[in-house]
Amino acid sequence: MKISIERATLLKAVGQAQSVVERRNTIPILANVLMEAEGDTVSFRATDLDIEVVDKAPAQVERAGATTVSAVMLHEIVRKLPDGALVQLTDDGASGRLTVQAGRSVFSLATLPKEDFPVMASSEYSANFSAPAPMLRRLFDKSKFAISTEETRYYLNGVYMHVAQGEQGPALRCVATDGHRLARIDAPLPQGADDMPGVIVPRKTVGELRKLLEDDEAQIAVSVSETKVRFATPAITLTSKVIDGTFPDYSRVIPIGNTRRLEVDAAEFAKAVDRVATVSSERSRAVKLSLDEDRLILSVNAPDSGAAEEELAVAYGDEKLDIGFNAKYLLEIASQVDRENAVFLFNSSGDPTLMREGNDTSAVYVVMPMRV
Amino acid sequence: MKISIERATLLKAVGQAQSVVERRNTIPILANVLMEAEGDTVSFRATDLDIEVVDKAPAQVERAGATTVSAVMLHEIVRKLPDGALVQLTDDGASGRLTVQAGRSVFSLATLPKEDFPVMASSEYSANFSAPAPMLRRLFDKSKFAISTEETRYYLNGVYMHVAQGEQGPALRCVATDGHRLARIDAPLPQGADDMPGVIVPRKTVGELRKLLEDDEAQIAVSVSETKVRFATPAITLTSKVIDGTFPDYSRVIPIGNTRRLEVDAAEFAKAVDRVATVSSERSRAVKLSLDEDRLILSVNAPDSGAAEEELAVAYGDEKLDIGFNAKYLLEIASQVDRENAVFLFNSSGDPTLMREGNDTSAVYVVMPMRV
Repeated sequence: MKISIERATLLKAVGQAQSVVERRNTIPILANVLMEAEGDTVSFRATDLDIEVVDKAPAQVERAGATTVSAVMLHEIVRKLPDGALVQLTDDGASGRLTVQAGRSVFSLATLPKEDFPVMASSEYSANFSAPAPMLRRLFDKSKFAISTEETRYYLNGVYMHVAQGEQGPALRCVATDGHRLARIDAPLPQGADDMPGVIVPRKTVGELRKLLEDDEAQIAVSVSETKVRFATPAITLTSKVIDGTFPDYSRVIPIGNTRRLEVDAAEFAKAVDRVATVSSERSRAVKLSLDEDRLILSVNAPDSGAAEEELAVAYGDEKLDIGFNAKYLLEIASQVDRENAVFLFNSSGDPTLMREGNDTSAVYVVMPMRV
Repeated sequence: MKISIERATLLKAVGQAQSVVERRNTIPILANVLMEAEGDTVSFRATDLDIEVVDKAPAQVERAGATTVSAVMLHEIVRKLPDGALVQLTDDGASGRLTVQAGRSVFSLATLPKEDFPVMASSEYSANFSAPAPMLRRLFDKSKFAISTEETRYYLNGVYMHVAQGEQGPALRCVATDGHRLARIDAPLPQGADDMPGVIVPRKTVGELRKLLEDDEAQIAVSVSETKVRFATPAITLTSKVIDGTFPDYSRVIPIGNTRRLEVDAAEFAKAVDRVATVSSERSRAVKLSLDEDRLILSVNAPDSGAAEEELAVAYGDEKLDIGFNAKYLLEIASQVDRENAVFLFNSSGDPTLMREGNDTSAVYVVMPMRV
């Protein structure tokens, strides 16, 4: 293999690959990136056996071929090369070394045979559709905060992407929950997605996927089977196993009879929650919301360290209500609101509360109360 | 106590205090800041028993008095208050609570009696002088990287500030070393500093002192005794115990007979060192410098992972020389150079090497070689 490639192009391609590589792993070749040069393209492939990313970049290929080197080390080297440099990658096959040359710098990196690299088996996908990057970004960005980190409830360790009947018709829906809060985000169902099986996209995949979605103009090719999901741009293909489990029936958790309606400026609300929570040093800080005619009092009482109280002018016309929440959860859902006011719908102080942005039902959040 | 104070003023004063407070400590009152209000000033005092900082700020004092509250919590609260807020601090003495009020936020913080707060005993200082902030900043900024972190060599855990005969006359000198490298920085001796005893200023004090030195126009009042050092601006007084030990005779370590002179662009040199060091994953990465007529080759050989080499055009006119250094140490001393080229003076591959900026002898660095 012998190729010349621009430093910026190489950096971007290797950057995506090295982020999939697990820092600690016992199988040496999983630390490596597989480079394959042919025609006028070089592809960079990395995997942790659950996720595989392939990044294609244009290069001047003088001699086709393939080899594997440490993804992290190659990325570090390329990052430190001067901007605008032309990088030559040469592998003569015999020496077991890849030579990286740019200007007056020469690196010689240990390689492992390309044959040992575990390439993910290709699959049949039962649904193939295309979706705009901003749509997928919204679906995952607004749901991922609620993903559970409890390993014992492995079926909650991802975002459940599936087809559902939304309030505006058929929807591509993403749901995540950890049992304490839940996010349910809908988007219009793309053509060709009707038969998509519901899949639980693992947390790490959601993180890697995010990098494909930066470009507002990009169309993402999505392929889904019972066991795998694939997201692709013309340059990058991200394939991931999905979580082998059953996502719980979340619809039972979403309250439908909550009628006590509070409308509040989300940013003001979040700042006030953050302030009053300061006086408690405990991890699970309970903030008490006391609602009265157009008035909300947020308060925290931490007998050891102190107490805090703050009043907000809000729109509320129902009976008096006192209800407590984990401060962190309130902050996280309030930060999802970006265009309009936050609307909370309460039932009683012991029942799950619903939150949405204005009257928009395409993104709803549920949060369980805490006793205060 | 009852005072009103501007949020920005309060934030700055409490900010300095809370950074002295140790996060983990077994004596509860050491987590607190002592506030004392009188006249039109409130002072904020914090200590870890080795360092004490007192920050005075203008305030409207309605009722004089004093109390103590958690420094970190007060800082967090003030930080989260909206910009421009006027903050009222009220302590009625009886309730054991301090009320913090700003706009519609009210906090009530647990206090501890002011009598329990350990105020550092005042001292006689044998030298008092004044020094411009930029001068002290240079002395400590350019030496602190060499402070040892080995707790067993406690007498190296600080910067040795003393009076010395510099190459341009009497000097205020700061020296730090960890046995592997050494920094020796000189400044013209300020008036009144002649009789100053040499003191070892602890690492933490050097860090806290840095915040007093941001203002280019500030004059810092320095007071030194055998056991304590004090740095003061009109608003802030930082008092610290000095390390009770004898700083080793560093002058024997500074080579005087090194004649092989290398001159190199410090930024280019640092970048090249950083690049070649990438191929080694070990912590103590040795970089080999191979010197020849106006040519420097930097190389690293890590049998497991690879090798790297880079050539730099330099000024060197002496015999060929191969010498190895810890990459981290080379990077740190190269980053001290900001105006001119770095000048290295070598003897042999086993001897300490001297580095300075151009021909400026007011800042010299020594680094021990490594076998390569």
